[in-house]
Amino acid sequence: LLSCSSHGRLCASSTSITQRNNSSSAKLIVDHDQTTGVAVMHMQSPPVNSLSLDFLTEICITLEKLEMDKGCRGLIITSVPSAYVATMQIIVVVGNSSVNSQPKVFSAGLDILEMYGKSPEHCGEFWKAVQEMWLKLYGSNMVTIAAINGSSPAGGCLMSISCDYRIMADNPRYSIGLNETKLGIVAPFWFKDTMVNTVGHRNTEMSLELGLLYKPAEALKIGLVDQLVPEDQVLSAATQTMTNWLAIPEHARQITKSMMRKPTIEKLRSNREADIQNFVSFITKESIQKSLRMYMEMLKQKKA
Amino acid sequence: LLSCSSHGRLCASSTSITQRNNSSSAKLIVDHDQTTGVAVMHMQSPPVNSLSLDFLTEICITLEKLEMDKGCRGLIITSVPSAYVATMQIIVVVGNSSVNSQPKVFSAGLDILEMYGKSPEHCGEFWKAVQEMWLKLYGSNMVTIAAINGSSPAGGCLMSISCDYRIMADNPRYSIGLNETKLGIVAPFWFKDTMVNTVGHRNTEMSLELGLLYKPAEALKIGLVDQLVPEDQVLSAATQTMTNWLAIPEHARQITKSMMRKPTIEKLRSNREADIQNFVSFITKESIQKSLRMYMEMLKQKKA
Amino acid sequence: LLSCSSHGRLCASSTSITQRNNSSSAKLIVDHDQTTGVAVMHMQSPPVNSLSLDFLTEICITLEKLEMDKGCRGLIITSVPSAYVATMQIIVVVGNSSVNSQPKVFSAGLDILEMYGKSPEHCGEFWKAVQEMWLKLYGSNMVTIAAINGSSPAGGCLMSISCDYRIMADNPRYSIGLNETKLGIVAPFWFKDTMVNTVGHRNTEMSLELGLLYKPAEALKIGLVDQLVPEDQVLSAATQTMTNWLAIPEHARQITKSMMRKPTIEKLRSNREADIQNFVSFITKESIQKSLRMYMEMLKQKKA
Repeated sequence: LLSCSSHGRLCASSTSITQRNNSSSAKLIVDHDQTTGVAVMHMQSPPVNSLSLDFLTEICITLEKLEMDKGCRGLIITSVPSAYVATMQIIVVVGNSSVNSQPKVFSAGLDILEMYGKSPEHCGEFWKAVQEMWLKLYGSNMVTIAAINGSSPAGGCLMSISCDYRIMADNPRYSIGLNETKLGIVAPFWFKDTMVNTVGHRNTEMSLELGLLYKPAEALKIGLVDQLVPEDQVLSAATQTMTNWLAIPEHARQITKSMMRKPTIEKLRSNREADIQNFVSFITKESIQKSLRMYMEMLKQKKA
Repeated sequence: LLSCSSHGRLCASSTSITQRNNSSSAKLIVDHDQTTGVAVMHMQSPPVNSLSLDFLTEICITLEKLEMDKGCRGLIITSVPSAYVATMQIIVVVGNSSVNSQPKVFSAGLDILEMYGKSPEHCGEFWKAVQEMWLKLYGSNMVTIAAINGSSPAGGCLMSISCDYRIMADNPRYSIGLNETKLGIVAPFWFKDTMVNTVGHRNTEMSLELGLLYKPAEALKIGLVDQLVPEDQVLSAATQTMTNWLAIPEHARQITKSMMRKPTIEKLRSNREADIQNFVSFITKESIQKSLRMYMEMLKQKKA
Repeated sequence: LLSCSSHGRLCASSTSITQRNNSSSAKLIVDHDQTTGVAVMHMQSPPVNSLSLDFLTEICITLEKLEMDKGCRGLIITSVPSAYVATMQIIVVVGNSSVNSQPKVFSAGLDILEMYGKSPEHCGEFWKAVQEMWLKLYGSNMVTIAAINGSSPAGGCLMSISCDYRIMADNPRYSIGLNETKLGIVAPFWFKDTMVNTVGHRNTEMSLELGLLYKPAEALKIGLVDQLVPEDQVLSAATQTMTNWLAIPEHARQITKSMMRKPTIEKLRSNREADIQNFVSFITKESIQKSLRMYMEMLKQKKA
């Protein structure tokens, strides 16, 4: 994969035969196959693809560009193999594992450092970017498939359930879920709505109250993911599934998707500013900042 | 079964012993057992019980008459055996099958010919009849059971999920689902709402976006049908189930049903005209007309 | 368990070592372990813990006191062993069973005697107490677990599904469900909403229309209960589960619970008076009173 100077897909295709446009920023490698109309967005923000303000901004810019590109009809989101991590920031793994078999991360979710010890203005700017990413992804006209090749807690789970379809590596060391409560913070209503739309009210209620992370088999059972495949087949399975989705008459599929998701999207769109204020006033509370500090210290200890 | 001159149940009972009133139009045979209070509505509009404007009108008239008849407390909807078809209009069957084992159809759904090459006025009148059928069936005070003895795509699926209970023939050559998207058209919000009420948001989303048709076993698994029985027992199983439903105190059951379904019904009832306008402007688009033509040509080729 | 003079937890702890406060009224024994912050509310209103106006009032007072007690973070609701019943009022058991193996009841639900032959004023007061119990329980900030050690029809089921988690005795002679329709009465919208939030729209629709009672295995399958354990382990399993729930950061869990349940609670809270009027005008109808009388006579005959 080529590395280019900006977010755009300005690079000449490296392999004109397959008509691919490869572009990348520091943290995002986009591989757009013009023949199939499918773009693969590889997240590569070491060590665990945490969703920082910068990373979210890159994702949003990429989503917008792909959305406006008539030649791009499908988007696969995945984590690059180099995102293998020797130390886990968010996910705590039990047991010993050699460096070669380190568990991988799809995305560890929102970057706590963007919410800890930051000004209200910064927290607000960060939250706006989280909203923007979700609005773009959940409301995308493209077919979106999450190729979940690693653990996917919190914001990583949100990205996954905002796609049209989820394929996860069948590795019991991985887990997925909205575990915000475990950190002492609260998933906002639109995280909740997205999850209710995916696994229903009761699963969401118990899941959010307990901050549950599900192993792949459990996630499949409740419908949090749609399909499990061996770890080395996640991307190929996603590509194959994409072919089936792209065979559907596009206009009808897009209208149908919009019908299903619009009410949920409108709930946030008409309340963005209030949602930001709500987040900022919550996250800047001393007690919540203390919770975040304790959580980060706990992670450091696990790491050591 | 007797054939009478009008839609009404004016015919003298053919078998006074069992106190049955049999009536029929060209396309609908209604067998009303006065002893049990159960009417069976046999659809017989060759070749595949397509829901044309005429057929929908007959169904609506019959539903209204049965609804107002205090002696009719339960309604079973099924397809007559003579609806066996040598050529399938909507359902494309893979493999060779002898004439004797031809797959059967419950209803192939809305008649495409009512939407193709027709005036906006005609399309509007047609859509109003589709609405009326759903409003009457989904909101019926009677116990309604779909005895699904054949494939049931699109409008056929809508009729099925508008009933209180669904029994399907356990024949893997049959399928059921709202597959409108595959034709390049879009299931309207009240089709969607009815399906969400039956199988939940996520199943509906994936099902409608992909235009999925489910084999009986799959349909049972997601709750799109309630029970599978051998093909020759569909009607008898429906009759037996009806007995159990009719044993429930009627007034309480009716109020409960209304409580469950009223919000969904009101959504259409308060937006009928807008929904018609929406349908007409969509279906008369050149691109959509082209999709319909391509679909019909595809069916003809499969048939040939 | 000690018996005290009032509803309050005024009694000195009988076992100062474990720092327990035991209190009880005639019908409710509350065992509050100050060390763990968990209160167990044992219902003991023979023969079947029917929810009479008096009993509901006691429950409400207890719920309010525990809610305001900062030292109480979790509540387990169960039925005392002495509630074993030789004769079943609401649940009709098929087959012969010796006195020693009599089935037990969690709660038989709303006391029919409070609705039969009573003045509209009394019915209204009764219904207000039912509302109040649900509002307090479904909206509790405490972790609430139903330890369902017996049958739990109607109002007993409502209490169960208003908790955060349900553990039921794995005894096929027990059942649980909102079976109001079988009595000729109707579960109100907030019973319905609570059930939809637990088992989804379709399960609720069929369940309420038919007044279904589910065996433990069936209840587990549709998600009406969360866990089955041997009969003698219901309370210990509930205590163990409570420990897990109380390990979650409390503030985040409470906000999350409120986010999940507030819309459902607000629907009743903003319509309490209309809901009472609706209940009173329904239940005082001659036809409904007749249904109740017939139901009670049927129970007496089964009993004899």
